[in-house]
Amino acid sequence: MPVGTVGSVKGLSPQQLDDAGAQIILGNTYHLMLRPGADLMRELGGLHQFMSWDKPILTDSGGFQVFSLASGQARGQSKKTGMKGPLVTIGDDGVTFRSHLDGSKHRMRPEDSMQIQMAIGADIIMAFDQCPPGQSDEAQVRLAMTKTSAWLRRCMQSMTRKQSRLFGIVQGGVYPHLRREHVDDICSTDLFGYSIGGLSVGESKTQMLETLDATTEVMPDDKPRYLMGVGTPNDLLDGIRLGVDMFDCVMPTRNARNGTLFTSTGRVSIKRREHRNSRDPLDPNCSCYTCINFSKAYLHHLYRTHELLYFQLASLHNITYYLDLVRGARAAIEQGAFESYYHQHHGINH
Amino acid sequence: MPVGTVGSVKGLSPQQLDDAGAQIILGNTYHLMLRPGADLMRELGGLHQFMSWDKPILTDSGGFQVFSLASGQARGQSKKTGMKGPLVTIGDDGVTFRSHLDGSKHRMRPEDSMQIQMAIGADIIMAFDQCPPGQSDEAQVRLAMTKTSAWLRRCMQSMTRKQSRLFGIVQGGVYPHLRREHVDDICSTDLFGYSIGGLSVGESKTQMLETLDATTEVMPDDKPRYLMGVGTPNDLLDGIRLGVDMFDCVMPTRNARNGTLFTSTGRVSIKRREHRNSRDPLDPNCSCYTCINFSKAYLHHLYRTHELLYFQLASLHNITYYLDLVRGARAAIEQGAFESYYHQHHGINH
Repeated sequence: MPVGTVGSVKGLSPQQLDDAGAQIILGNTYHLMLRPGADLMRELGGLHQFMSWDKPILTDSGGFQVFSLASGQARGQSKKTGMKGPLVTIGDDGVTFRSHLDGSKHRMRPEDSMQIQMAIGADIIMAFDQCPPGQSDEAQVRLAMTKTSAWLRRCMQSMTRKQSRLFGIVQGGVYPHLRREHVDDICSTDLFGYSIGGLSVGESKTQMLETLDATTEVMPDDKPRYLMGVGTPNDLLDGIRLGVDMFDCVMPTRNARNGTLFTSTGRVSIKRREHRNSRDPLDPNCSCYTCINFSKAYLHHLYRTHELLYFQLASLHNITYYLDLVRGARAAIEQGAFESYYHQHHGINH
Repeated sequence: MPVGTVGSVKGLSPQQLDDAGAQIILGNTYHLMLRPGADLMRELGGLHQFMSWDKPILTDSGGFQVFSLASGQARGQSKKTGMKGPLVTIGDDGVTFRSHLDGSKHRMRPEDSMQIQMAIGADIIMAFDQCPPGQSDEAQVRLAMTKTSAWLRRCMQSMTRKQSRLFGIVQGGVYPHLRREHVDDICSTDLFGYSIGGLSVGESKTQMLETLDATTEVMPDDKPRYLMGVGTPNDLLDGIRLGVDMFDCVMPTRNARNGTLFTSTGRVSIKRREHRNSRDPLDPNCSCYTCINFSKAYLHHLYRTHELLYFQLASLHNITYYLDLVRGARAAIEQGAFESYYHQHHGINH
């Protein structure tokens, strides 16, 4: 799922996303509740109509970004808002935080997260969970699991929008036995699908894959499994191999903006001087608008001259690369040839 | 003509320009000679191929921007390059200047301008002229005319590319008798078309229109007349009424980026709070992708959140507005109804 943080997948129009073959996009509840705000979302008929996207939208719960963005202030961004003291307080009932934009105070309980996601009109809604920090010990992780489990029941109670589907979120840090324990609880709810949270938050790649393996092993086979906030092309292939069905990540669009482009022969750093006179397309095996029409020399030139068109062309290519990669994986699975697909593509873009 | 300063009409792909109905675009020789440079343009097969635009391209001579950009350094931008002293020197032979980017020294004679424009592969090439500053007296203007006339002959000598067509440029400041005198000389050359330079450089609107009137009155009827660097929608209508056929201006794209959008009911400042909850399209009489798919509330939101998509949607709309305006004028002329078209549209977007 391409990520449309504040109601737009950065640099791309809905038409371009559609051309790239996107079937679903992600919206960030934390960002949308601050701008344009839940009331306006409701008044304007929801995010689909607002951004002119008629395919599915999934929203996160807002919790993860409250912890990472709002608490980021406490670690040095507080100058911007002139606020002092702890900016995120986690209680049994929910979370109180200050906006990273203007310091305004907000409260988010499981019920609030549901209300906002319903106002957004998301097709798939995430339960409000607590994602413990990357280095948490077993006791801390267990506390977060308990809170996440309790909050899930409250989310289920307040989820009243018939057109939306709720996903529960499995926590458990990097402790396989805690993951299994939490899957038992979360996946006993008979929801539409289940997410795997709390990975890719600083643990090693080996730890991530071992934890993921232990988690998907016990998750239901007949429900979509969504690995949140992951990852590199390699991560996606590893995740699929371990039974994950859905991913979201800002990497394709963010890396595009920073000059890193994913191709069938590996990462290309388009700012490098070696590309300045290359008439070759960025990726001869890609059929996106960028690769069909432009040379690496042109992309290099647009990047170096800070032309706006660069962001459009680069983002379109990286999103197309990611979507092609998972489309290919799905086709390979259907043909019983995923292992060979995995080995063909793994390691090309680390 | 939409302006593609450094090899890209800011924010828009060639496909989007084509969708808006652009028939020709302008490239800036000064910018392109610095980045990517004339040698690279030549090596890569010219600007059409470089930017993937297969319709006509017109290039300016570079002269005007040498005077305005390179000399801008002398007036305060010299810190950037660490250079001292005068940065543009005008001789009989041509101009010596320092790049506004890195202070590197360049020389541009009429022959150099032709060589660069031919390397760019422009379909329409401007003669290298001298545009006197806006407040010049008759003596200064006459000097610039003499230089422009002499340089035109040198341009004609060195223009050897069969696929390109040369335009001569008429100067003469705001002095109708000097304009007539210069038209007599420049338009005696039997070139493909003629440009009107040195207007919209600080004179009053009345002065501009009076000078333009005196100039077009004596220009040949059977050759295209191009008013350089103009202007607002009103300016275009006034120019057409006085017999101008071609215009270029960065205004539609630059104003779009700054939040000013042209519509059939007047300018819209999209940043204003009044648009934050408007479900109306930007312009109900416009059929561009932006107006068909998005509300003013969404454009307002994208502008306020600095989303890249804003630049794409806003630029597309403003370019479409300008092209629709001149398309409408052409149709009205063909139907003998231009006066009524003029009065219908003049004053809506000042």
